[in-house]
Amino acid sequence: MLHRAVAARAGLECVPVGVDDDGMRVELLPDMDAGAVLVTPAHQSPTGAVLAPERRRSLLAWAERASAVVIEDDYDAEFRYDREPVGPLQGLAPERVVYCGSASKTLAPAMRLGWLVLPDALADAVAGEKALDDMGSPVLEQLALADFLEAGELDRHLRRMRPRYRARRVALVEALARELPEVELAGVAAGLAVVALLPRGSDERALATAAAQRGVAVHPLGFSRFDPASGPPGLVLGYASMPEPALARGVAEVAAAWRELQSARAA
Amino acid sequence: MLHRAVAARAGLECVPVGVDDDGMRVELLPDMDAGAVLVTPAHQSPTGAVLAPERRRSLLAWAERASAVVIEDDYDAEFRYDREPVGPLQGLAPERVVYCGSASKTLAPAMRLGWLVLPDALADAVAGEKALDDMGSPVLEQLALADFLEAGELDRHLRRMRPRYRARRVALVEALARELPEVELAGVAAGLAVVALLPRGSDERALATAAAQRGVAVHPLGFSRFDPASGPPGLVLGYASMPEPALARGVAEVAAAWRELQSARAA
Repeated sequence: MLHRAVAARAGLECVPVGVDDDGMRVELLPDMDAGAVLVTPAHQSPTGAVLAPERRRSLLAWAERASAVVIEDDYDAEFRYDREPVGPLQGLAPERVVYCGSASKTLAPAMRLGWLVLPDALADAVAGEKALDDMGSPVLEQLALADFLEAGELDRHLRRMRPRYRARRVALVEALARELPEVELAGVAAGLAVVALLPRGSDERALATAAAQRGVAVHPLGFSRFDPASGPPGLVLGYASMPEPALARGVAEVAAAWRELQSARAA
Repeated sequence: MLHRAVAARAGLECVPVGVDDDGMRVELLPDMDAGAVLVTPAHQSPTGAVLAPERRRSLLAWAERASAVVIEDDYDAEFRYDREPVGPLQGLAPERVVYCGSASKTLAPAMRLGWLVLPDALADAVAGEKALDDMGSPVLEQLALADFLEAGELDRHLRRMRPRYRARRVALVEALARELPEVELAGVAAGLAVVALLPRGSDERALATAAAQRGVAVHPLGFSRFDPASGPPGLVLGYASMPEPALARGVAEVAAAWRELQSARAA
């Protein structure tokens, strides 16, 4: 939702592209007359689908034919728990892909540090816009991050955090299976959030509101859709910042909210 | 020049307002049909003129009549060496003035921290734009700065730096009088830069380029003007980051460049 608001503020018109278990439905692009496409190929946000190999190839072929730009938001590619992360698209077509990385998931969103790898043709224009926007990012964080990377500390941090996040994911998934057997999980074992699909006809917003009243923050899945009602209802549950017992308690609260809503509906 | 580029990028049309020894010529505003005016009342940038008391009053009266916004860039008000700094306009008309402060001059531009005090009617809209722009500023610097302010460290820092900057200013002014008696200084004893007016017909850009070739960075005064040729040529010489001996050496290099240009012209 935020991405769409940012694009609209920049004067762009957004059009949605469907997503299935193999990621974005790339075959829909040729009919769309789009100049750019935003993708999260390593881990579709929020469903968690990985862009299938043949779709990666046809996405880049389309971009080449259409002289379009592929914006690859590699927002949490570092967190894949079942196998090695997929490599970025950018390396396959550096003149067609704008790669966006960030320290927000690997270190802390409070740092507000990100980076772009740009096609040569765009580098000067983007640097110019950035200068007009903020005259550059804070220098201390950049130096600290460069030092952290050079010393190999980011790799060490990721090796330390992957099993920790995996354990949190497992705890969340187990708690959902126990407390809310009605939900179905989407996506691969990756990232820092779980998508829990609710039974058809459920009111995801009412559930998120009721959970918030019990002190638990979850996001209605529809917030991530162009048309919120265009797919099954669900919740996005982040688990990065909480230890396992807190996650179990959080799920118990969501389940209690769910049962309350069910009773109210039945009444 | 940067301010104009930023305003233009936001889709605004910029029109210049004249400046004299009493700051912006506020009496020109009613004929301009402007919706907002950018001022540096404590210390006009770059000439150093302080907005005269009666002009402060008529500026705010105009803004009220025209339902216009006064953007007060209080960029270096903390550095006044001859008397107490002037208070901001914002306190006199909080619903007409947008106050802009920054840590860039008092602490370090590398921090990229600034703040706005906004009329109630604008606060939500500006917060919304800021969220779309960058989702918020880095948190660590903000916490550190808040701590620094609360502990009284900023006041101590300013008390420590004012005499140091004053000494640097004196050293720069003395070196200019000694090495480049042709120049005339503009503005009050304030800020972190000196404006040196060159004799009419001098080529300020050629002098800045020749100084740069000798390793000294100075800015042509025309860079700060809407029409660079609309006033006398000059140089803006910053002195904040250099100890006195380096300032004297820098002025000597500018003077040598000046004499070279004079000889080339005479030849």
